Amino acid sequence: MALRRFAATVSYDGAAFAGSQLQPNARTVQGVLEEAAQRLFGVPTRVRLAGRTDAGVHARGQVAAWDADTRLDPETIGRALNALLPEDVAVRCVRETDPRFDPRRWARRRSYRYTLLTSPERQPLLRRVAWHVGPGLEVAAMQSAAEALVGRRDFAACSGPLPAGRSSVRTVYRAAWRSEGCCLLFEIEADAFLPQMVRRIVGALVQVGRGRLTAEQFSELLRQATPCSMGPAAPPHGLCLWSVSYDEGYEQ
Amino acid sequence: MALRRFAATVSYDGAAFAGSQLQPNARTVQGVLEEAAQRLFGVPTRVRLAGRTDAGVHARGQVAAWDADTRLDPETIGRALNALLPEDVAVRCVRETDPRFDPRRWARRRSYRYTLLTSPERQPLLRRVAWHVGPGLEVAAMQSAAEALVGRRDFAACSGPLPAGRSSVRTVYRAAWRSEGCCLLFEIEADAFLPQMVRRIVGALVQVGRGRLTAEQFSELLRQATPCSMGPAAPPHGLCLWSVSYDEGYEQ
Repeated sequence: MALRRFAATVSYDGAAFAGSQLQPNARTVQGVLEEAAQRLFGVPTRVRLAGRTDAGVHARGQVAAWDADTRLDPETIGRALNALLPEDVAVRCVRETDPRFDPRRWARRRSYRYTLLTSPERQPLLRRVAWHVGPGLEVAAMQSAAEALVGRRDFAACSGPLPAGRSSVRTVYRAAWRSEGCCLLFEIEADAFLPQMVRRIVGALVQVGRGRLTAEQFSELLRQATPCSMGPAAPPHGLCLWSVSYDEGYEQ
Repeated sequence: MALRRFAATVSYDGAAFAGSQLQPNARTVQGVLEEAAQRLFGVPTRVRLAGRTDAGVHARGQVAAWDADTRLDPETIGRALNALLPEDVAVRCVRETDPRFDPRRWARRRSYRYTLLTSPERQPLLRRVAWHVGPGLEVAAMQSAAEALVGRRDFAACSGPLPAGRSSVRTVYRAAWRSEGCCLLFEIEADAFLPQMVRRIVGALVQVGRGRLTAEQFSELLRQATPCSMGPAAPPHGLCLWSVSYDEGYEQ
């Protein structure tokens, strides 16, 4: 009887979750996954996630890992978990991993996508996944400001409240806007993210798009050492944890 | 004081509606639009719609028209209606029309889109807009069967129950499948549609994709004169009334 470690890609609609991480008396992604795993394997099962997402934030490519003493093959486990999970969360690509695999520590890059709806009117079918900001954004200014994000630096200014002493140096590999129909998508990839980092960046970039902040002022804010310098965060429902990447052999 | 006629493009998430057409004691798109119009214009206001959609069916480009004795310009009316409407329905492109404009009778073509999710696993973020049929569909066979739909003919076989004596001759201009990510989209355009026509066609084409019906058997079913010959309808939440077109000058 040896424990085997499994990993899976996890997608969820964040609307009805109080975030990804376990909390007492709240419905969380981790809690719901652990409940399904306990029902399947018959024992309490700790599930670890690659990235923390806030209440209301969605995921297409979150990564989870857990141990189980089972003879079931990964595909069967995936089907069984999906049958036990509620309709707003699902696993895919269940696989057996190195028993030391840690979805958070082993992650090399995370990418997020934020969706803005730029039509003048509401779009009922997009209301759960896009922030309705309306038309008239200066996309070129937003793009030019976003370019200042790329590189290795202290991102404290873009963070929400941070525990004292925690490093806020991160590397952003890519940060760009692109149009898709009546939406404007922001795609950002980094080694790791600080709390609320993408939403605070998007909040400030929308201010740039509205002409209330110049790209230079945005760069200046970025250089501040104090968390929350960038001002209020964009709402969570526009954000989606898109993918998490690992070294070869652990790719999703 | 003269009545002016207005038209608008209407989008809705069909999940919480008992269909588009007014019904006593049920929440309908027409009912919700009439309620908002009555609040804005101060008098009971009849709203007419271009196409009837069943309970659960969505719309991106439904068309509505109504009369009002008002000095407000169309843009202001649009903003005011959207402020009064619930979050699952919105109007756009409000315009003043010919006082004889009838959104149903004047419509030249309607197009619908049906979305199938073909990944093995559920996708929580698509669960409200796609029918999860899983992988393994033979798309080439579905496409070849769909081509038999194009043209002018009696479509009784694809219809749900029909009132006696009502013509079921329609012209289909376009019917095609295309892939988009993990989805398979069916796009169909016709002068008009019979009750449940798109959903029954999709139900049968999925049977073709699963190898349970050949393209020839599909063509044969199509020639039946009895409503419901095509078998059960695909579920409503995968269907969206995409657009309605009019003669030049009334284009959306």
